[in-house]
Amino acid sequence: MLAAQPHPPAAMAATTHRPSRGVTMPLGFIAAGSHCGIRKARKDLAIIRSERPAATACVYTTNLVQAAPILVTRRHMQRSGGIAEAIVVNAGNANACTGDEGVADAELMVRLTADALGIPPESVIVASTGVIGQRLPTAPLRAGIPALAELLDVAGGLDVADAIQTTDTRRKETGCVVHTSAGRYHIGGVAKGSGMIHPNMATTLGFVTTDADIDPLPLRAILQRATRRSFNRITVDGDSSTNDMVTVMANGASGVSVASERALADFEAALTDVLVDLGRQVAADGEGASRLVTVEVSGAATEDDAERVAKTIAGSNLVKTAIHGADANWGRIVAAAGRAGVDLAPWQMAIRIGDVPVLEPGYRVVLDEAAATAALKRDEVVIGVSLGDGEATATAWTCDLSCDYVRINASYRS
Amino acid sequence: MLAAQPHPPAAMAATTHRPSRGVTMPLGFIAAGSHCGIRKARKDLAIIRSERPAATACVYTTNLVQAAPILVTRRHMQRSGGIAEAIVVNAGNANACTGDEGVADAELMVRLTADALGIPPESVIVASTGVIGQRLPTAPLRAGIPALAELLDVAGGLDVADAIQTTDTRRKETGCVVHTSAGRYHIGGVAKGSGMIHPNMATTLGFVTTDADIDPLPLRAILQRATRRSFNRITVDGDSSTNDMVTVMANGASGVSVASERALADFEAALTDVLVDLGRQVAADGEGASRLVTVEVSGAATEDDAERVAKTIAGSNLVKTAIHGADANWGRIVAAAGRAGVDLAPWQMAIRIGDVPVLEPGYRVVLDEAAATAALKRDEVVIGVSLGDGEATATAWTCDLSCDYVRINASYRS
Repeated sequence: MLAAQPHPPAAMAATTHRPSRGVTMPLGFIAAGSHCGIRKARKDLAIIRSERPAATACVYTTNLVQAAPILVTRRHMQRSGGIAEAIVVNAGNANACTGDEGVADAELMVRLTADALGIPPESVIVASTGVIGQRLPTAPLRAGIPALAELLDVAGGLDVADAIQTTDTRRKETGCVVHTSAGRYHIGGVAKGSGMIHPNMATTLGFVTTDADIDPLPLRAILQRATRRSFNRITVDGDSSTNDMVTVMANGASGVSVASERALADFEAALTDVLVDLGRQVAADGEGASRLVTVEVSGAATEDDAERVAKTIAGSNLVKTAIHGADANWGRIVAAAGRAGVDLAPWQMAIRIGDVPVLEPGYRVVLDEAAATAALKRDEVVIGVSLGDGEATATAWTCDLSCDYVRINASYRS
Repeated sequence: MLAAQPHPPAAMAATTHRPSRGVTMPLGFIAAGSHCGIRKARKDLAIIRSERPAATACVYTTNLVQAAPILVTRRHMQRSGGIAEAIVVNAGNANACTGDEGVADAELMVRLTADALGIPPESVIVASTGVIGQRLPTAPLRAGIPALAELLDVAGGLDVADAIQTTDTRRKETGCVVHTSAGRYHIGGVAKGSGMIHPNMATTLGFVTTDADIDPLPLRAILQRATRRSFNRITVDGDSSTNDMVTVMANGASGVSVASERALADFEAALTDVLVDLGRQVAADGEGASRLVTVEVSGAATEDDAERVAKTIAGSNLVKTAIHGADANWGRIVAAAGRAGVDLAPWQMAIRIGDVPVLEPGYRVVLDEAAATAALKRDEVVIGVSLGDGEATATAWTCDLSCDYVRINASYRS
């Protein structure tokens, strides 16, 4: 959940939270999640449905190996011009590297969903997550999708969050209310983690719904910018998935139009908040993670520079193992910044861990080991890096690197 | 040591191995390594000396954060035009991020060495490895360098290999004899591992000596090409060091001139073999490693493409944890190739593990799990990937990713 905000003056857009139902928090969305039999016992199938055709935008993995559901969803979005009515998603099998048969299986998922809901196949978005390179078992889907369609409900959002998990240890969901002078609307979302997660694309699966009334074209542009500043700044292990996708559906059920420049900016800020909130949950629950690591880079010449340095530090195995061991090894932070591909002056860097200053410009070490160790043992570790080179900032998120990451991934298929 | 080669016909250059003394295998080099007190008990200081001024080339880390010894060595190489007579190197402290004081400390190491050997400071190369961001203790050097200079000997090569280790579990050394129609010459080398190791530069420290007679200019060009195909294709953890350098000194003591096109090509082949041998030893002894992983990419449109795919697969935490668990999770190999930034057709890929075919074009899975698991449990695991897109090849080397990597790096400074 997003942090509570003070209630805003009537004329200003602002965000407040309330107990969330994830994707069914916005008006006009119903959803369900259940176990159909792709996995042994855990929930593995979910449907999100808008009561009316919704403006829809997607961002996809930049991996050249694209799973069958990505290929099918891309085609649907191109044909529909950015309108969809439902999302169907399974966990336990990624339907990736499965060739023409895999595409046929993804199309079957779509057809079963379209038939059960009485909508055209082109208005269905399909997603999968799980192991790569195995055929999707279709028998559980043939029985499971029609049965799941009967369960769609405004209370179903959290079941969706549960059904899309793979190695996640907890569900990821958020929701907020955006207050505007024209009334209020909602944004809700769910996401999954927690391995094969790396920036440079729409990492993991994220599904966001809103009852704001917005056209597909601005929605797509806003989603791309908001993703850049949220999901694309998370890394767990540097490996980009074949199945990643973030989708936002806007069905207009609130009656609040988002069309003016001001309204679009407010919507972008709120959507970015929602995606950052989900992204932080994904990073905090990275495979084997014991803490969330937030890397805040400031004083950069450009946002690009700040982003590159933040993501390189967040992606460093050595930084992440040091944080796991609560070791204030700031040399690794400097070394990671130095290989970020940014033209920086290393001796101008300042580093803090939480509120504890560690390094000041001129390589002046001001480290209080006890205070730094305490800051490194908090649930959220903040690494602050100032480049002394300008005004731009960027934040990236990751987790520590633990033996459990190795254990989980040494036997993933077994 | 390099694998034995059949003795060559008299007119052809070729390489044979013999019991190596590392950098003191070539004629006219003496060396020593000892404990001076930077570290608690292990050897931490080494000197390599050529009996005459030697044509010398260096490649350096591409990290923007460059340790003080790198700055000093660069300056010496520029001033001398590629001539040096000695190398001094310490372990236990990287002398990186130490500002002007660090440069003064590196210059002190140089001056002490030059004074002890009676040579000009500009002909001394200096290197350091160890923890970043702490001042180099100079008292042990003031006593240790003159004492070490007394110990220089043709039997000292392996002591150098021992003295430059950090978290290495074993020494890295090699040597070979190159037979040519004009006589024979030798190449010997030592290197250190074993963390903060990643391609895209001269990874780690490597010192190579040869008694071949070659000019500084071709030596530099050859070193750059040979490094690209050896040390720059190793990765342990994706983190590039601030101190990396590979140096080759050629003193001509064999009397064999390497100047003709043919002789230069033979020298380049032999030097590449030596660097590959050292690089493989570094990868095999990567922090926490239980096996060497060799990634052989073939069927690429260009060597650049092949290299990028090989290095991306070798750098994947998910591939490396799967190998640690002897899990033939080929989907991770395909996914890593897909994010390598190369325009490839994933469905044309073929994958083998050792001699065991796993995937054939069209995503046809031909995996014999028992055979693949056996191949994954060998000391050297070979991942073969064919892109079906041309004739170019490249090989990269890494190790598996284990809990021990995390353990070593969670408490490196402690």
